[in-house]
Amino acid sequence: MLLLIPGPVTTADAVKKALAQDYAPWDNDFRAIVRKLCVDIREAAGGAPETHVALPLSGSGHFALEAAVRTFVPRTGKILIPATGAYAARLQRLASEAGRTVVTIPVGTRERVAPARLAEALCDDPRITHVGLVYSETGSGICHDVPTLAQVAGDLGRRVIVDAVSAFGALPLDVSALPAVDAVILTSNKCLEGPPGAAFAVCRIDRLEASHGNAGSWSLDLADIHEHGKTNNGGARFTPPAPTLAALSVAMDLYRQEGRAMRLARYTANQRVLYEGVMALGLTPYLPPDLQGPIIVNVESPTTPGWTLQGFVDALKARGFVISNFYNTEQPTFRVGCIGAITPADMARAVDAMRQALTLAPIAA
Amino acid sequence: MLLLIPGPVTTADAVKKALAQDYAPWDNDFRAIVRKLCVDIREAAGGAPETHVALPLSGSGHFALEAAVRTFVPRTGKILIPATGAYAARLQRLASEAGRTVVTIPVGTRERVAPARLAEALCDDPRITHVGLVYSETGSGICHDVPTLAQVAGDLGRRVIVDAVSAFGALPLDVSALPAVDAVILTSNKCLEGPPGAAFAVCRIDRLEASHGNAGSWSLDLADIHEHGKTNNGGARFTPPAPTLAALSVAMDLYRQEGRAMRLARYTANQRVLYEGVMALGLTPYLPPDLQGPIIVNVESPTTPGWTLQGFVDALKARGFVISNFYNTEQPTFRVGCIGAITPADMARAVDAMRQALTLAPIAA
Repeated sequence: MLLLIPGPVTTADAVKKALAQDYAPWDNDFRAIVRKLCVDIREAAGGAPETHVALPLSGSGHFALEAAVRTFVPRTGKILIPATGAYAARLQRLASEAGRTVVTIPVGTRERVAPARLAEALCDDPRITHVGLVYSETGSGICHDVPTLAQVAGDLGRRVIVDAVSAFGALPLDVSALPAVDAVILTSNKCLEGPPGAAFAVCRIDRLEASHGNAGSWSLDLADIHEHGKTNNGGARFTPPAPTLAALSVAMDLYRQEGRAMRLARYTANQRVLYEGVMALGLTPYLPPDLQGPIIVNVESPTTPGWTLQGFVDALKARGFVISNFYNTEQPTFRVGCIGAITPADMARAVDAMRQALTLAPIAA
Repeated sequence: MLLLIPGPVTTADAVKKALAQDYAPWDNDFRAIVRKLCVDIREAAGGAPETHVALPLSGSGHFALEAAVRTFVPRTGKILIPATGAYAARLQRLASEAGRTVVTIPVGTRERVAPARLAEALCDDPRITHVGLVYSETGSGICHDVPTLAQVAGDLGRRVIVDAVSAFGALPLDVSALPAVDAVILTSNKCLEGPPGAAFAVCRIDRLEASHGNAGSWSLDLADIHEHGKTNNGGARFTPPAPTLAALSVAMDLYRQEGRAMRLARYTANQRVLYEGVMALGLTPYLPPDLQGPIIVNVESPTTPGWTLQGFVDALKARGFVISNFYNTEQPTFRVGCIGAITPADMARAVDAMRQALTLAPIAA
């Protein structure tokens, strides 16, 4: 059974093997695993040890995003989050519930955030302290030009939090070249191809040091995690998801072997096989080719009488492929992840399974 | 290698096998696993479906404790947390950082919370809305009489949050008999013998329904998790630690087979073999027998010249047993967990390993 969802993804056998062990999280051997893992992730973000640190947090990417907002956006701060889709809407909601003032700019559902539009919004409102940017919109599949947008924000004296959850490890990112970025958020279970349960924030150390007492939550305080990490040598504040971290460290070994560029090339090849495959089946991808990112493809729901998303999902599952049984686009689509330990050959088999499912689904329904 | 730490614990092979798979969290088959898991946990807490619900949260027990405080203690509320040790201190800190007013009563380090003392403190300060109680103090090994204390608080019109993290599944608990209890917090990786990475709150439904908008955190809002759960049929708000939940559901099958009383009896037998074993080695347990709980035993550090905790930990690890390499008591101790998929025979072997380590450690150091 291959997972073709935008995370959790299909993982390699070596990753699953590392997951199936009992670990003592404060044991010195385990602390060494965590220390190396954090170095690996910092380096994958382009951070130098003098300026950046990767901080682990249990749970989902949303927890780490909320932690970043709480830690870096002052309680009297204001964060602009361009309305790029479902995941931007989630970032808006969590910032708002954390008591921060949230403003937005509209972005078309099949449109990238325009740097000039961001600049204009920032110039219009000097009280905006931060910009929150979603790199890969899991809802639609569009990837935004986060490096350029972060540069624009920085040039206008604003700071940036990047939701790189479904992008990190595949799309290019170099925090050393983006001084405006306070934090980049990622999880274990997307393009790094680990199991779910751990998130990370790659943060600027100087900004962390200046953010003590801002979070209003011990659990979600990145400054406290950093402070604790200074003296605890890989030992967590609270019980961490130790098997997940150990498995992710194996996944990072595989990641280094493949390299980011090759991983992106593999995902892009997966996406193209899928995109061209569904077109050949007479279906219409939600995004035109020039906007389609390599992480996830949404396809407009077939208009075949009797077609249902759950029926299609079930028919694909019977053939060994799990796709999402929900969608985040404004119109009905089915969505397929192109990430994880899968290859273009797997994707070609998935397209063939879709062909069979499309033929059979109306009969089944 | 057996883990003799107070969680994460040694897990059964069937649990580890379930952990080593890729799961799609919103897949219908997986939702069924989560639904059953939540029923199992609610029932283990004694909750009826009409009155109580078990809500899953990614991460550690501290996250769920903070979620309970945020959700149930009004922002203008005041919570009394008896100072029973290191974990009570943590609960105080997280409540305080969440902006709630925290008060305490002193409790001796080798003393149970006296119901009369709690009643007195509540009578003295009518502004106290809540009481936070640690059931099993992981720092020392003392278990407090939470059912009686919760009854006292309820009789005085106050509500209760129970940190049952290292107690749940072994020590008796029946939320149906304790109407004052808003929430009981537990994790996957202690007496339920699952892997770490998931926490749960067993909550009163009426109090959840009355607590919307109180949390000030989307991530840590139990009322929102409950609201989402009503219509999502086991589908999480954010990516859950799916392998951990699947493995815990296997652990709950084993739990039902063993039964709570038999599990407690096994842990108690583990604790006695250990307690009597270290006494026979000439060592002194931190707690007298009448205060010693079944979850964790602290032992005063040997005064043998050259003995170090890390040296002792390493010597035991070389013999197949991992104990904690830190302690939470005011005087130096080593601490050993009695919980997990281990038996009195394992504990007897561990005591023998301690005997060897005590003989050899001074030489090694």
